[in-house]
Amino acid sequence: MHLIRFRYENSIRYGILSAQSVTPIRGSDLSEALSGEPDGAPVPLSGIEILSPVARPGKILGIGVNYAAHAAESVSFIDTKKPEVQKWFNKQVTSINDPYADVDLPKVSGQLDYEGELVVVIGKRGRHVPRERAFEIIAGVTIGCDYSVRDWQRASQTMIMGKGFDTHAPVGPAIVTLDEIDDLSALEVRTFVNGEQRQSGHVRDMVHDIPSQIAHLTAAFTLEPGDLIFTGTPAGVGAGFDPPKWLKAGDRVRVEIDALGYIEQQIVTEPGATVIG
Amino acid sequence: MHLIRFRYENSIRYGILSAQSVTPIRGSDLSEALSGEPDGAPVPLSGIEILSPVARPGKILGIGVNYAAHAAESVSFIDTKKPEVQKWFNKQVTSINDPYADVDLPKVSGQLDYEGELVVVIGKRGRHVPRERAFEIIAGVTIGCDYSVRDWQRASQTMIMGKGFDTHAPVGPAIVTLDEIDDLSALEVRTFVNGEQRQSGHVRDMVHDIPSQIAHLTAAFTLEPGDLIFTGTPAGVGAGFDPPKWLKAGDRVRVEIDALGYIEQQIVTEPGATVIG
Repeated sequence: MHLIRFRYENSIRYGILSAQSVTPIRGSDLSEALSGEPDGAPVPLSGIEILSPVARPGKILGIGVNYAAHAAESVSFIDTKKPEVQKWFNKQVTSINDPYADVDLPKVSGQLDYEGELVVVIGKRGRHVPRERAFEIIAGVTIGCDYSVRDWQRASQTMIMGKGFDTHAPVGPAIVTLDEIDDLSALEVRTFVNGEQRQSGHVRDMVHDIPSQIAHLTAAFTLEPGDLIFTGTPAGVGAGFDPPKWLKAGDRVRVEIDALGYIEQQIVTEPGATVIG
Repeated sequence: MHLIRFRYENSIRYGILSAQSVTPIRGSDLSEALSGEPDGAPVPLSGIEILSPVARPGKILGIGVNYAAHAAESVSFIDTKKPEVQKWFNKQVTSINDPYADVDLPKVSGQLDYEGELVVVIGKRGRHVPRERAFEIIAGVTIGCDYSVRDWQRASQTMIMGKGFDTHAPVGPAIVTLDEIDDLSALEVRTFVNGEQRQSGHVRDMVHDIPSQIAHLTAAFTLEPGDLIFTGTPAGVGAGFDPPKWLKAGDRVRVEIDALGYIEQQIVTEPGATVIG
């Protein structure tokens, strides 16, 4: 199934997406929704707003330089000398965003960049999950853009300050369950800026495949339903051009993945006001 | 006030701690509890179990090499060349643990280390919070131990795999509100292993003080009630000895901070079994 979270007439529901409509299903959190039990009449797509498929993940993890062709363009901001080591970072959970929502151009930086990615959505708790059982804890896959603020990322070896800005983790539109995908490794990730194609890469070209990622992460800690894993970005990020092609207010960024649809955001100037309370 | 979360006769409540008892207060989450409205008769301390003061933080952030004397002993696992840059990492939220609970010696490593720290508990949402208003979003302070798995931390520049093991973020016992503390900068952090003192340092010796930390973090993202900030550890970690003094099963680690009390954990061998679902 293609599982979406959507707003319709002031209520927020999970539902199963089909060509013309969405069928609401029981449950307000992901674990309940995954049972896919219909609960109400189908709603026309024209009347809904599609939201991030997980309202508030417990964790958002991302892996760095996980496509060989991207490693070469990334030497200035990540250590690429040991490709055998998985390089993980967190995106802050407050960076979660809807798939077609606006994305902030930070007040504190002019170096906003895109990273189109396949995102794994965890569906079951898992610890010490071996490679061969990794898919048992995966609810499905979706699309994400790992927006990255390069000067803030480069400032510290840990990178996380540049990865977690508010609005910088749009994901969606649907969690597509694995039974809907003939060959996960054949999917192509493509990113466009204002209609110009910038990135492309196939899941099969990952340095560390999804089962290896799950096995490594769960050797250290528990993955839980709703956790999101950004599985790495292919070559073509803005930082890789000379001069770099940073995003500007008004730009539109679109990420497509075969069989999963697309997400698209407009870049807007961040308000930048102090908010307390 | 000294705000604790505690278990008493199968229910979990917030309460205000005094010398002999705890007075339950209204509210099941931190934001409600901070109003401190009594709700029920005092309970004797002998009958309660003190839990982590936040059940599940939205974020757990930590700053690296934030005491000058610790920087010198840390050159093998963190870049100490630019002390003016704040070096942030996430501890996974699944690593949260109670202040007197057991802590896992990982199945995958023999290099478990301690880092006693002052922990800031966020009480209000904040974004773009200037230094001079930073204390407005702080609910109070508590004690934490930032357990660190050094080989996993060193394996990747981002460090986070070594910082987020399950059970590795015990915090407590109480959130002490700032009105209870005469001079935050004068507090001393002390860590003991099996009764032997290993670490000591004063809050005033932080490289980046707490207002600077809040200002830097909120330039990028929103801090929310319940978020925890591990503010750095003083010199004396196990990795700094030659040979290193790694923790073993059976060791007891105690972290004390003036005016805040202490936390203490026993190190136990991790079960290490595969858990799915």
